Amino acid sequence: MESLQKERLTSERGGRRNSSMENGGSALKNWRFIGNEKLTQASAITVRGVLNMLMENLNPDEARPVIPLGHGDPSAFPSFRTTPLAEDAICSALRSAKFNGYSSTVGIPPARRAVAEHLSKDLPYKLSPDDVFLTIGCTQALEAIVTVLARPGANILLPRPGFPYYEARAGFSDLEVRHFDLLPENNWEVDLAAVEALSDENTVAMVVINPGNPCGNVFKYDHLKKVAETARKLGILVIADEVYDHLTFGESPFVPMGVFGSIVPIITVGSISKRWIVPGWRLGWLVTHDPNGILMKQGIVDSIKGFLNITSDPATFMQGAVPEILENTPADFFTKIVSTLKESAEICYDRIKEIPCITCPSKPEGSMFVMVKLNLSLLEGFMDDTDFCCKLAKEESVIVLPGVAVGLKNWLRITFAIEPSSLDDGLSRMKAFCARHAKKQ
Amino acid sequence: MESLQKERLTSERGGRRNSSMENGGSALKNWRFIGNEKLTQASAITVRGVLNMLMENLNPDEARPVIPLGHGDPSAFPSFRTTPLAEDAICSALRSAKFNGYSSTVGIPPARRAVAEHLSKDLPYKLSPDDVFLTIGCTQALEAIVTVLARPGANILLPRPGFPYYEARAGFSDLEVRHFDLLPENNWEVDLAAVEALSDENTVAMVVINPGNPCGNVFKYDHLKKVAETARKLGILVIADEVYDHLTFGESPFVPMGVFGSIVPIITVGSISKRWIVPGWRLGWLVTHDPNGILMKQGIVDSIKGFLNITSDPATFMQGAVPEILENTPADFFTKIVSTLKESAEICYDRIKEIPCITCPSKPEGSMFVMVKLNLSLLEGFMDDTDFCCKLAKEESVIVLPGVAVGLKNWLRITFAIEPSSLDDGLSRMKAFCARHAKKQ
Repeated sequence: MESLQKERLTSERGGRRNSSMENGGSALKNWRFIGNEKLTQASAITVRGVLNMLMENLNPDEARPVIPLGHGDPSAFPSFRTTPLAEDAICSALRSAKFNGYSSTVGIPPARRAVAEHLSKDLPYKLSPDDVFLTIGCTQALEAIVTVLARPGANILLPRPGFPYYEARAGFSDLEVRHFDLLPENNWEVDLAAVEALSDENTVAMVVINPGNPCGNVFKYDHLKKVAETARKLGILVIADEVYDHLTFGESPFVPMGVFGSIVPIITVGSISKRWIVPGWRLGWLVTHDPNGILMKQGIVDSIKGFLNITSDPATFMQGAVPEILENTPADFFTKIVSTLKESAEICYDRIKEIPCITCPSKPEGSMFVMVKLNLSLLEGFMDDTDFCCKLAKEESVIVLPGVAVGLKNWLRITFAIEPSSLDDGLSRMKAFCARHAKKQ
Repeated sequence: MESLQKERLTSERGGRRNSSMENGGSALKNWRFIGNEKLTQASAITVRGVLNMLMENLNPDEARPVIPLGHGDPSAFPSFRTTPLAEDAICSALRSAKFNGYSSTVGIPPARRAVAEHLSKDLPYKLSPDDVFLTIGCTQALEAIVTVLARPGANILLPRPGFPYYEARAGFSDLEVRHFDLLPENNWEVDLAAVEALSDENTVAMVVINPGNPCGNVFKYDHLKKVAETARKLGILVIADEVYDHLTFGESPFVPMGVFGSIVPIITVGSISKRWIVPGWRLGWLVTHDPNGILMKQGIVDSIKGFLNITSDPATFMQGAVPEILENTPADFFTKIVSTLKESAEICYDRIKEIPCITCPSKPEGSMFVMVKLNLSLLEGFMDDTDFCCKLAKEESVIVLPGVAVGLKNWLRITFAIEPSSLDDGLSRMKAFCARHAKKQ
């Protein structure tokens, strides 16, 4: 039996080894394997990690239900139940026994074709099935492109606020991260001057998330065109994160970045997770918009295939169901989801106006989130946004993401994509919480 | 419009950049992103890659069906249809709408508990649900542990012949690979003297695949115990790849490596892919056998969690179905599968004996494969095993994996896990092929 060290090992990245030998105990074994600190570091900044930490603050004696305004997964709420057509498509693919075997690593041809046709509806040209790579949710698509682009010294431009999974994967892949601001006073548009200023000869790509997570904004055609032109000027790739595609309910319609594929090569990542409200199904895609063949020439396409050759694939029967899901989901399902989101976004925007210590720079027009600014000077006893969210969880059983988790300290990301009645309840509790902690005049 | 270079870019790893500037063409754009050669290199040696290459040799005018003796996926054959119970379990989980949302990154608790209980049946102690991590097939489990163990200078000991996915992932993670032999004359047992000789202070782990891929052997209790004792002596982790667990039909019963967890820490990887004949479902696990808490102390457990935090998860509804599948699959389903495999293995062994240029050192007792030695001196006009397999594909529409793909040049890996009648057909064609190409006496 080994005598165990009690304290947690705090090794540097691949550095310090098991110190049991140094301790001199002859009963201690000098085990030669050790954890990879890089993984623990990279994964420290995920949304899920922060939410788990907040959940630990919940009061176990609280009788009221927890109101989850922290993450983009409304699948548990009746108003956001997915379409039966999608469930039927999967069961039917599964029971056909045609999809029990391994898929090809890029995805099965009918699924690639269906995604190409689905996305081509919004484009001025037709995608080929060869432009489409099936992935395990949008997560694996991001993992793929970050891994493909990483090389010593390279850097990637990410939006602030943004989606911290990019930072996590880039950190793990030793791809340097540089942040450009999204401008709250301009409907969260990209600060293109900052993009130009940040970019150098080692910059490989910039990320655009549209509809916006975490801001709930929707970029207009002209702005996206300017993004494309800036990227072309800098010689960098645009990664278009469109996982919230078509979830728009304001004045700006959704414009896919791929529209500008002839200006600059675009890699679009997406999935059925959000529009069909099934994030747990893990079916996504990575799509190259590359009418000029630049991604092929630069070896990006081969590297994507290489990546997919040495990782796992989305379940084959899920892929088998993709054509039916993409082609035949009834339009009224989407209409209902978008109108529920619109209703929720309006409740959210209106109720936030009643809370003096938080301000919303612009009404959300898409996705499932809104960013609001926290004015701590109007409150008593909070150190920062994380402290605010921890106490909110503890006192009111309301989970809200601190802005620091998405790059903006002392802001909050509020998810409005939950059952409208629950949202109303959650925002009422938040209002009461803020009133209770307001600084005495 | 860009003028495109015709030749394929042949960059060194992260090295040479797009040379369009050097070419001086003012119309050429100096794109700053470039593919990741490491991915293309690492993925060049997968079984799927080699099989794809062989498939390109098939004669499109051949009327006879292709006989796939190259890979471990019999799911397309009627005799290997999975149990309806598993299909029902998944549809039921899916239609419950309880599993549409994100799972926790380590897996949902009921699935972890079910895997722990399932595997504990064969162990002298009970696994805890916390020992179990759900993964996207066994593939992601291997990816996880290789990534966790990689650090500059470290090396891992892999069996030869083996499963090339280990080499691919280790290559990508810069984990040095050293090979120990499996000994054909000793029922493919591990050459433990070689393991000791290869190991140094930077060795972190060794891999044991049991039942054996590609050899079809099944290790005995005493041999596995010696493996554990050797690993303990060397201070290294044992990775037990048991993806073919319980697929045994000879004299040796399956003994899980975890039995020896008190001697040395074991990480077992497995899945439902092979035993339930559903490799496309992508549901696997990584399990720590660590009664002495060494993996925890060394930071391995935290790193596994870190890895899972920054990758995708198996579909949540698949996880939801795990308890039903593991607990209630009827015993006669397994009996039937194993007896079909036994029948196929015997056909394979008997028919091989009729082919003079190939020899089988030992009758397969498990998994879906057998390794046979190719005696090229009895044949005319073949350079090596790959050449043999390409011509076999072309002339007979039979796909067999060249041994070089699993580390043994001029051997062949033959899959017997297909419909027995097709197997018989395939081996007859192979016999005719060898007779036709036999060296004239």
